[in-house]
Amino acid sequence: MKSILVLGAGRSCSTLIKRLLDRSEECGWKVIVGDIDLSVAQQKVSGHDRGEAFQLSAIDNIERDKRICEADLVMSMVPAFLHASVAKVAIAAGVPVITPSYLSDEMKSLDEAAKEAGVLVLNEIGLDPGIDHMSAMKVIDEIKSDGGVMKGFESYCGGLVAEESDNNPWHYKISWNPRNIVLAGQGGSATFKDAGRVKLEPPHRVFRRLRAIEVEGQLYKGYPNRDSLAYEEIYNLPDMETLIRGTLRVDGFCRSWDILVQLGMVRDDVKLVWSKDISWSEWTRSFLPSKTAGMTVSEAINATVISDHETNERLEWLGLFDTEVGPEITEGTPAEIIEALLVKKWALEDGDRDMIVMWHRFEFEKDGKRYARTSEFFLEGRGTTYTAMSDTVGLPMAIAAEHMMVGGGFGSVGVEIPVTSNYYDVVLPKLEEFGVVFKESQIEL
Amino acid sequence: MKSILVLGAGRSCSTLIKRLLDRSEECGWKVIVGDIDLSVAQQKVSGHDRGEAFQLSAIDNIERDKRICEADLVMSMVPAFLHASVAKVAIAAGVPVITPSYLSDEMKSLDEAAKEAGVLVLNEIGLDPGIDHMSAMKVIDEIKSDGGVMKGFESYCGGLVAEESDNNPWHYKISWNPRNIVLAGQGGSATFKDAGRVKLEPPHRVFRRLRAIEVEGQLYKGYPNRDSLAYEEIYNLPDMETLIRGTLRVDGFCRSWDILVQLGMVRDDVKLVWSKDISWSEWTRSFLPSKTAGMTVSEAINATVISDHETNERLEWLGLFDTEVGPEITEGTPAEIIEALLVKKWALEDGDRDMIVMWHRFEFEKDGKRYARTSEFFLEGRGTTYTAMSDTVGLPMAIAAEHMMVGGGFGSVGVEIPVTSNYYDVVLPKLEEFGVVFKESQIEL
Repeated sequence: MKSILVLGAGRSCSTLIKRLLDRSEECGWKVIVGDIDLSVAQQKVSGHDRGEAFQLSAIDNIERDKRICEADLVMSMVPAFLHASVAKVAIAAGVPVITPSYLSDEMKSLDEAAKEAGVLVLNEIGLDPGIDHMSAMKVIDEIKSDGGVMKGFESYCGGLVAEESDNNPWHYKISWNPRNIVLAGQGGSATFKDAGRVKLEPPHRVFRRLRAIEVEGQLYKGYPNRDSLAYEEIYNLPDMETLIRGTLRVDGFCRSWDILVQLGMVRDDVKLVWSKDISWSEWTRSFLPSKTAGMTVSEAINATVISDHETNERLEWLGLFDTEVGPEITEGTPAEIIEALLVKKWALEDGDRDMIVMWHRFEFEKDGKRYARTSEFFLEGRGTTYTAMSDTVGLPMAIAAEHMMVGGGFGSVGVEIPVTSNYYDVVLPKLEEFGVVFKESQIEL
Repeated sequence: MKSILVLGAGRSCSTLIKRLLDRSEECGWKVIVGDIDLSVAQQKVSGHDRGEAFQLSAIDNIERDKRICEADLVMSMVPAFLHASVAKVAIAAGVPVITPSYLSDEMKSLDEAAKEAGVLVLNEIGLDPGIDHMSAMKVIDEIKSDGGVMKGFESYCGGLVAEESDNNPWHYKISWNPRNIVLAGQGGSATFKDAGRVKLEPPHRVFRRLRAIEVEGQLYKGYPNRDSLAYEEIYNLPDMETLIRGTLRVDGFCRSWDILVQLGMVRDDVKLVWSKDISWSEWTRSFLPSKTAGMTVSEAINATVISDHETNERLEWLGLFDTEVGPEITEGTPAEIIEALLVKKWALEDGDRDMIVMWHRFEFEKDGKRYARTSEFFLEGRGTTYTAMSDTVGLPMAIAAEHMMVGGGFGSVGVEIPVTSNYYDVVLPKLEEFGVVFKESQIEL
């Protein structure tokens, strides 16, 4: 019997593994799931008779590599920096690989070897990156083949909380890696094109110049992510007036989060030691000038940065003004201390459902006229296990896996990302069956 | 004949090499100077009959290491990351080493080997670090031995331009590594203690909360540098209410420089490509929101950040608003583009003299009373070669070298920095002969 090897079985793998198991009988495969924590792998397999769980060693890759060589397809869900090491072994063994992660330079360097081995290593086929690439390129290709000339492209995606589960003033709960949430926008300058000019925004400005976005009557704000200029080449969009990829949040979130950024409360570059009995308000004063020591923390923030009433209420709701209670961990970077707080405050609770929102805007010229088309989708999760995040990361991967195992394949070899019709023509229609339906509209400008 | 080996002969080595040559006859040594660029080494030796120039290989260390083994003392003036590699060879050969650079972790790790070999590897014996350590520790030790209890320590140093050569609105010219000037304060969060609390300032805030400092009737402003908290241990200053080490600039400089920081114009984390014929004003617009496109660049800055008339005049003086002329290099990080501009605009010209200002403040309690003592010096340079920067970096090194070669030595082995009386009792009195005279004053608070 053919087999699919899933490496890594963390929270974001729930839907992927379930879907692969659900399809195992009809497609005639078994699903072998490995994780550093055997019980996590076992739980995901949940006794399915076509499933098998095993333990990934933390010390060596002997078992992992043996399993890779025996598999017909590898789904690499390990931490991103490990994908290339998985892919190297798989390419040598002639086994194709799928990952949801951004293509690294190390992975790119395996392209020639993969082509020589006749193996497809398909990256960036989750939500973002993944569904964003496919849904955007489908429209871009349509516009171009219809004689349009692309002038602007903007694309924003956010993992949020469903309206019915939204019961905090940030309108946000955590459906993915909390560390990435705390460090969002802080990894480096954002570069993009806007109004015909190359633009750079340093990390302390990205939450300030926001893009207003409306989806299904709800107002969001988007901030730019890292290197959008690379998409001139990746999406073949030369001479754009506007080229921005970013993240969206419910209106108000970014304005308030910016205060944490301004004050340095999400810095990850220096470890500090606070006294073990420090309160949150005292901790917060680490980021405020000494001349504000006589004020309340809320007043001190107003005297230091341009905040507002709603923001200070949000900071207070997080507990940052608390004079009785303090951080549980008192040694670490500010980002680490804040992360430990947010994991509790922004937890998806039993019965909560998350939500994904994606929005693209395409501006183009055709026959002397100028048009703007938008394409958007939103999807609510099914609960705290099969979240919208888990669904939208796992389903494109599972659909791609099925197409490669029993559907004839994508007709490509080498190290790829899904930006061409051979991918989006297969994956997008299947995703619609799961509710990932893009709604388009167009206006003349 | 004994010999001192000087590795590296760049601009900051002028005074060091001159002084070693000047003393060579009386002290009975020869001075061997190596540089990647032979002509630079030759120029510094300038035909002195006790001097010798040779070329350091860019490919291997064979010649360098042979010279180290033959020397009686090595002055390592190579780029900081290379000092440890020099020290390793020297320790194995039993040859002591002097460097002006901050002690790296790699260098620290050689302490045991140096002790076993009975070799002194003396680091941080230039200006800052160097003279700052010695002058501060001398006072701290005095206060403590006099029964005082240290409560606060602040120390600021700046390389500036002498008043008579100050003819630009920034009141600044470049007397050391221009790259470090552009990236000042941007390498990571500053951490320090202020009013009894641990404080963190992210790079986008360090030029905003400034310390007013007056030396010889001139007003300066100081900003904190990186990790001041480490000096609790290095200077043995536990339980300080205030502990800050920083850099000072003429009043107004930091406020204007902060605008470049705020806008992202000194970011070094992303390389961009601008069009080759771009003007400076268009380049500056890369950092301004598109909604300001209809304004002048000066108006656009005012609409984006909290600037002021003086600051915009300073930016205009730099040429950043120029609509005709543009950057000579148009590919690189913003920091690289700005550095190329500043190297020209802030150049020390023929006849110009630079200036060093250092200011310490010690707060302590004694017999139930509280006192503040300040200790400060300023020194003007002798020209564009023997700058105050070159003098204050090179003279402490040359004094230490002479003491180690013919003065009986410091009585220490291992990897050291000069924070104890065996160093400052020797070096500070000698420095006074060259005009490095600290002026102290004390008040009761």
